Amino acid sequence: MNYPSGIKKEKEKNLLLEKTNYKNRGMTLEADINISNEYYREIDKAFIYKKPTPIKITKVDYPSRDKAIIKEAFFTIPSTTDYNGLYNGKYIDFEAKETKSKSSFALSNIHPHQIKHLENIYHHGGIAFLIVRFTTLNETYLLQAKDFLNFIKEEERKSIPLSFFKSSGYQIKDSYNPRLDYLKIVDSLIGGI
Amino acid sequence: MNYPSGIKKEKEKNLLLEKTNYKNRGMTLEADINISNEYYREIDKAFIYKKPTPIKITKVDYPSRDKAIIKEAFFTIPSTTDYNGLYNGKYIDFEAKETKSKSSFALSNIHPHQIKHLENIYHHGGIAFLIVRFTTLNETYLLQAKDFLNFIKEEERKSIPLSFFKSSGYQIKDSYNPRLDYLKIVDSLIGGI
Repeated sequence: MNYPSGIKKEKEKNLLLEKTNYKNRGMTLEADINISNEYYREIDKAFIYKKPTPIKITKVDYPSRDKAIIKEAFFTIPSTTDYNGLYNGKYIDFEAKETKSKSSFALSNIHPHQIKHLENIYHHGGIAFLIVRFTTLNETYLLQAKDFLNFIKEEERKSIPLSFFKSSGYQIKDSYNPRLDYLKIVDSLIGGI
Repeated sequence: MNYPSGIKKEKEKNLLLEKTNYKNRGMTLEADINISNEYYREIDKAFIYKKPTPIKITKVDYPSRDKAIIKEAFFTIPSTTDYNGLYNGKYIDFEAKETKSKSSFALSNIHPHQIKHLENIYHHGGIAFLIVRFTTLNETYLLQAKDFLNFIKEEERKSIPLSFFKSSGYQIKDSYNPRLDYLKIVDSLIGGI
């Protein structure tokens, strides 16, 4: 089974993440978001979860009555973004991506149906955005879906320059708890809580 | 790896469902909900998805550059309910379960953290409910989280009798398109759209 480039790397990262089980906090954007979401839940602020990695299971063994071992499965393309949940009575939905580039974020990182999904959520009153980390620069930005969608509509480019994140997005600074306080940005966008 | 009873059966069902790929529409509650959600998306009404089955991946092979085969993985207990999304600007969240019983729905079907999750969603202004199908009777009910949580709080019973679904829940009748129009019930609960 083939799948789009980029998935393999992402899955390796996920696998690594599962193994390290938060031992290396802050190692990846995903780990930072997961730990921040845990914190938000602990303080009863928001209930946002990462969706499990979508897979197609093709073979399962049952060595005993209460055991099941998946012996063959394949990664599949996600239909939606990775994160969604409830914050302050509102539906929240976002995709998070890292790039090693120092100058731009390649649009090939986001699947077309994820773009369509963000568009649907935005048009139906949900809070939709991207979180993009430029790992080499250690800079993380929140970019609202409406600005992201406008960029795609108006520009022919196959990547979003860092300057666009700086001008139209919002930098999320690292903090202690939560590690990545992206809801602070959301508060400022929706008029606070 | 061990896991609670009930998961195995559910996973077998999921596996079967993936294989049949909607060829047998209406076969399971899950298939009915998935096809209804597809319809809701097609008519631009709601964006509700089933979360992928959560698994812990322990071994992946890469036979070639663009291929990845999961060779060992285990089913894990879900942290949340199976379905969530956006409807009419609101966050919607529910769990769907089938029972063969003609008289009651065993509470052991819902994991304690799923109950906690429904409680969180309800308290924070989300639309939260259960959809329970009594397969032998071919009757499907929507039960709001608040009524479900009240039942658990006030009753010592380990199952919810069918009579409670009849008195406090709302029967969802089968229809053609969508097959299971549960949002019609939601409309009546939140005052229509």
